[in-house]
Amino acid sequence: MTDAAQHSPDETYSYLGPAGTFTEAALKQVPEAQGRHWRSVNNVGEALADVVEGRSTAAMIAIENSVDGGVTATQDALATVPGLRIVGEYLVPVDFVLVARPGTRLADVRVVNAHPVAYAQSRGWLEQHLPEHGHMPATSNVQAAASLFENGLADAAVAPPGIVDHLDVEVLAEGIGDNPNAATRFVLVSRARGVPPRTGADKTSVIIELPDEEPGSLLAMLEQFSTRGVNMSLLQSRPIGDAMGRYRFVIDLDGHVEDERVYDALLGVRRFSPKVIFLGSYPRADRREVEYHSKYDDEIFIEARDWLRGIVSGEPEGD
Amino acid sequence: MTDAAQHSPDETYSYLGPAGTFTEAALKQVPEAQGRHWRSVNNVGEALADVVEGRSTAAMIAIENSVDGGVTATQDALATVPGLRIVGEYLVPVDFVLVARPGTRLADVRVVNAHPVAYAQSRGWLEQHLPEHGHMPATSNVQAAASLFENGLADAAVAPPGIVDHLDVEVLAEGIGDNPNAATRFVLVSRARGVPPRTGADKTSVIIELPDEEPGSLLAMLEQFSTRGVNMSLLQSRPIGDAMGRYRFVIDLDGHVEDERVYDALLGVRRFSPKVIFLGSYPRADRREVEYHSKYDDEIFIEARDWLRGIVSGEPEGD
Amino acid sequence: MTDAAQHSPDETYSYLGPAGTFTEAALKQVPEAQGRHWRSVNNVGEALADVVEGRSTAAMIAIENSVDGGVTATQDALATVPGLRIVGEYLVPVDFVLVARPGTRLADVRVVNAHPVAYAQSRGWLEQHLPEHGHMPATSNVQAAASLFENGLADAAVAPPGIVDHLDVEVLAEGIGDNPNAATRFVLVSRARGVPPRTGADKTSVIIELPDEEPGSLLAMLEQFSTRGVNMSLLQSRPIGDAMGRYRFVIDLDGHVEDERVYDALLGVRRFSPKVIFLGSYPRADRREVEYHSKYDDEIFIEARDWLRGIVSGEPEGD
Amino acid sequence: MTDAAQHSPDETYSYLGPAGTFTEAALKQVPEAQGRHWRSVNNVGEALADVVEGRSTAAMIAIENSVDGGVTATQDALATVPGLRIVGEYLVPVDFVLVARPGTRLADVRVVNAHPVAYAQSRGWLEQHLPEHGHMPATSNVQAAASLFENGLADAAVAPPGIVDHLDVEVLAEGIGDNPNAATRFVLVSRARGVPPRTGADKTSVIIELPDEEPGSLLAMLEQFSTRGVNMSLLQSRPIGDAMGRYRFVIDLDGHVEDERVYDALLGVRRFSPKVIFLGSYPRADRREVEYHSKYDDEIFIEARDWLRGIVSGEPEGD
Repeated sequence: MTDAAQHSPDETYSYLGPAGTFTEAALKQVPEAQGRHWRSVNNVGEALADVVEGRSTAAMIAIENSVDGGVTATQDALATVPGLRIVGEYLVPVDFVLVARPGTRLADVRVVNAHPVAYAQSRGWLEQHLPEHGHMPATSNVQAAASLFENGLADAAVAPPGIVDHLDVEVLAEGIGDNPNAATRFVLVSRARGVPPRTGADKTSVIIELPDEEPGSLLAMLEQFSTRGVNMSLLQSRPIGDAMGRYRFVIDLDGHVEDERVYDALLGVRRFSPKVIFLGSYPRADRREVEYHSKYDDEIFIEARDWLRGIVSGEPEGD
Repeated sequence: MTDAAQHSPDETYSYLGPAGTFTEAALKQVPEAQGRHWRSVNNVGEALADVVEGRSTAAMIAIENSVDGGVTATQDALATVPGLRIVGEYLVPVDFVLVARPGTRLADVRVVNAHPVAYAQSRGWLEQHLPEHGHMPATSNVQAAASLFENGLADAAVAPPGIVDHLDVEVLAEGIGDNPNAATRFVLVSRARGVPPRTGADKTSVIIELPDEEPGSLLAMLEQFSTRGVNMSLLQSRPIGDAMGRYRFVIDLDGHVEDERVYDALLGVRRFSPKVIFLGSYPRADRREVEYHSKYDDEIFIEARDWLRGIVSGEPEGD
Repeated sequence: MTDAAQHSPDETYSYLGPAGTFTEAALKQVPEAQGRHWRSVNNVGEALADVVEGRSTAAMIAIENSVDGGVTATQDALATVPGLRIVGEYLVPVDFVLVARPGTRLADVRVVNAHPVAYAQSRGWLEQHLPEHGHMPATSNVQAAASLFENGLADAAVAPPGIVDHLDVEVLAEGIGDNPNAATRFVLVSRARGVPPRTGADKTSVIIELPDEEPGSLLAMLEQFSTRGVNMSLLQSRPIGDAMGRYRFVIDLDGHVEDERVYDALLGVRRFSPKVIFLGSYPRADRREVEYHSKYDDEIFIEARDWLRGIVSGEPEGD
Repeated sequence: MTDAAQHSPDETYSYLGPAGTFTEAALKQVPEAQGRHWRSVNNVGEALADVVEGRSTAAMIAIENSVDGGVTATQDALATVPGLRIVGEYLVPVDFVLVARPGTRLADVRVVNAHPVAYAQSRGWLEQHLPEHGHMPATSNVQAAASLFENGLADAAVAPPGIVDHLDVEVLAEGIGDNPNAATRFVLVSRARGVPPRTGADKTSVIIELPDEEPGSLLAMLEQFSTRGVNMSLLQSRPIGDAMGRYRFVIDLDGHVEDERVYDALLGVRRFSPKVIFLGSYPRADRREVEYHSKYDDEIFIEARDWLRGIVSGEPEGD
């Protein structure tokens, strides 16, 4: 890293590179990252290690894809690497182009290099237009395109549209993604302690491991949220890895930990299971106000607390 | 009240009299009432009015009967008279004798005077031994016996065994109650603010009115208790009285309001319905230690609170 | 019973008499009872015994009062007397007059005879207009008035307005009931097997005893109804009588046992507790159509059954 | 397919090949597949297409991995390809060796070819012993090893131990999997209608899409199982793919659809959501008897049905 000398660690942002990836597009949405040093890494583990070990202020990582679901590598890393906190969320529309070395015609394409997730998202188009193609997997969308110039094993690559700014490729077809609404959700992760202030349009992420021997414990855990009117926008089970059938749950909640209903629900969950990881409360990418029933308003929680505190302290109620 | 001069109000205890009732037997179990002035009243309303208006320190009233269920007059009074607090609970075994004016033989009995609850509890015996009898209702068990000397309309009366200490009656039969385990539960009610200290063998009484328009609201209310491991020993519905089908619930909980699990459950209930009346936390009559699962221990609640407070304040977790 | 000769047993209807009671007013609402023999009895037990032992086709009994709640004697009798079925429901508005022997003035009244429930419902008026009065309990509203002529112990009686048709009394005050909307709900009980046909405006009554040793069993029982969208219009706990704190539940459900959602809920409840008494499905007194969410429609249940039957039988699905 | 002539379609089994994969090891556990034609395919989609289009009797596909969780490609294929049924389950312990072309020494290895899941499961060993290595992804574990002889880009490959039977490779290290208990769960999928008979040690798989607009619908769905004592051994959310945050659930239940409690739970789920796919009931790989509380026994369900059928038909109960 030749430029390490010019940048203090707290001005560095790690992301899954190289330049041109969707992750880089997400990082471009972060105002405070503009003009700082961006460090391209090869995988989520490397990005989080940069943060944990102080090489970077923050890392941008993919966490959910509208077609492929939760990004399991990210979820597993967040469940096991301690001391991390999500501080922001970003959405990047997912679209793909089919690119090739200049001069290649679509009819010539026999082997397509593509990251497995990208391949899954454009398989419909590929099966229709290149029924005989073979698939060669790549480690990133940009690497798929870059490989065209490395070993010549593939004839074309599935890549993000921005690839043309970085590589001398020719676009054989545009908009080859099967789902026009496809998007990937990214999070910015740092070692920050404390929690960003409430905006009214927040999300809270936690990872919860259920107590071992309890039948019905999943239900009991989910009730902690429903009984306080807290909506879940993501519920994903991930194997703990020690035995078949043992799972932890990655959960996104609508609201901020300082919303009374969220705070109280997290207390309930924590009592229920000591294995709760708080990943952070942060503004939603879509800035959409959280909706909830007025019976779960902050003041309802505060009134109840005042009422019962008065009873126990012996003060007169309601006067 | 000729003796009012000798007694300060805080030395007076009201009870459903006259001397000889089960209520008096309950009051005899209260150490601090011994040697004080006992005021015999005619009904629950009068007893509670004595307390509210400051004529008495406390009133002993029947609240549940193992055969007849909740004493509805008491439950309704506690739901509507403000400013009262249950401070103690007492159990009196219920047994009955059949008494008559001296010289009466069992074979002569045609009309039996009995309080309706006492009648219900000895009907089996009466139907077997006096198949042709008629029933004349009385306002109390002692009044039933006293009536034998008032108008001569009844030939015998159902009364508590202690009646022979107060009236010149002859016992025609003993142990005529149908259920040998029958008991009545009494509570001592005062204007006390604050709550007696925890003993580990406590009970908490509340009256809860459900929010109007919510289907499933009873279930949601009961879940506030079950999800914190709080057991109910009494659940009784009572009409609110304004329309057919509108009910409030009289509930006894195992535990003290200062037990974390009870405290938190009451917060949950209060958020859910603003119409919650806290009737008191007090030692159980049977002094039986409250049993609950260790996952609802106080320290579990405290640990969860510390954990989340640390997160929101930005302190490092778990160090 | 001089007219017994002219009436076959299946043309006899028992009711809490004498003539002039609210129960008689309820029986007047039953078309098929008109012109038949009506048998006046002294209490609920006698009325039900008439039915069980074949002396009467059916008995009219009070089951719920908008002010005083469930009629516990009725509920307990239905829980313990086997072989009975509710076949109809009737509502009688409850209003009271204060009556006296001709020539009595309100100012003269010192002792008021009243059935305890009637007394409870007019206590507000009595305490305001006759602050010094004493209460003498009666076994029925009509007997209260009749007693004026029997022993002269009471000066006035609380009675139903219709009393003037039966007794030579003078009305001292009208409309003395504290709640202008007060009503009593009556049910007609017979030995009928089978169930009256669905009308769309039906009610189903059951009595459920929870399994002994199960914490959370009340919640689990109530969920059987809520999870199928079956609303409860009555939930009343009654002591089983064998020990303090052991209760059974008297429940009225909106809907008919042949409504799929009610049928399935009752299956769920029965699996859960073998101590379920089915008291009957019958048209509601108010003829109000039962409202429920369309996702609990009969066809939803039928479709699910067809779907799963097809799977298990190996038939092709959905073709 | 030169041997198509000798094999009727119903004697062909598709599996993710080539020979030597864990999938082949699973297929070796199927008695009825022995001696039949085994068709090696390149991915799950191809395997299922073989079945749907009649080229194969059945296909063996991986469905869950103790380290990596549900195999999402399989889950998504089962959710979208109609007409399939799981008929058996098989467990294969997962272990890995590091192999290379003969003559290669561990110290020479710079690039490791490995299927992403295999790579994830041996990363601990690789990072310790080959800290500088690069990863080249492969489409299967066997292809990873085969690639050593194809283009020479990788120096070593992560492969199943059985690879030495198929390729002329040298084992550089054995037991390099990070988790000694790692296993993969496979299912055999066919077009069979009907359901294999109950064995008492069965599993049932379903895919459930929740109704759109219902908050709390996940909870309500899970209650269908818990209220009948049906345990879930797998709950995995998968994006439906049409919009961010829309999920379906892949669920494995303990028990057979012909177990009354499972049957009734599936009825409940189907009523709740018309989008339920029944994937099959089949013997568990581990042959472990399903445990459940006796209150969910078949006879409990049957008794309840008989009871209620008797009531509606008008037959006498319980006599």
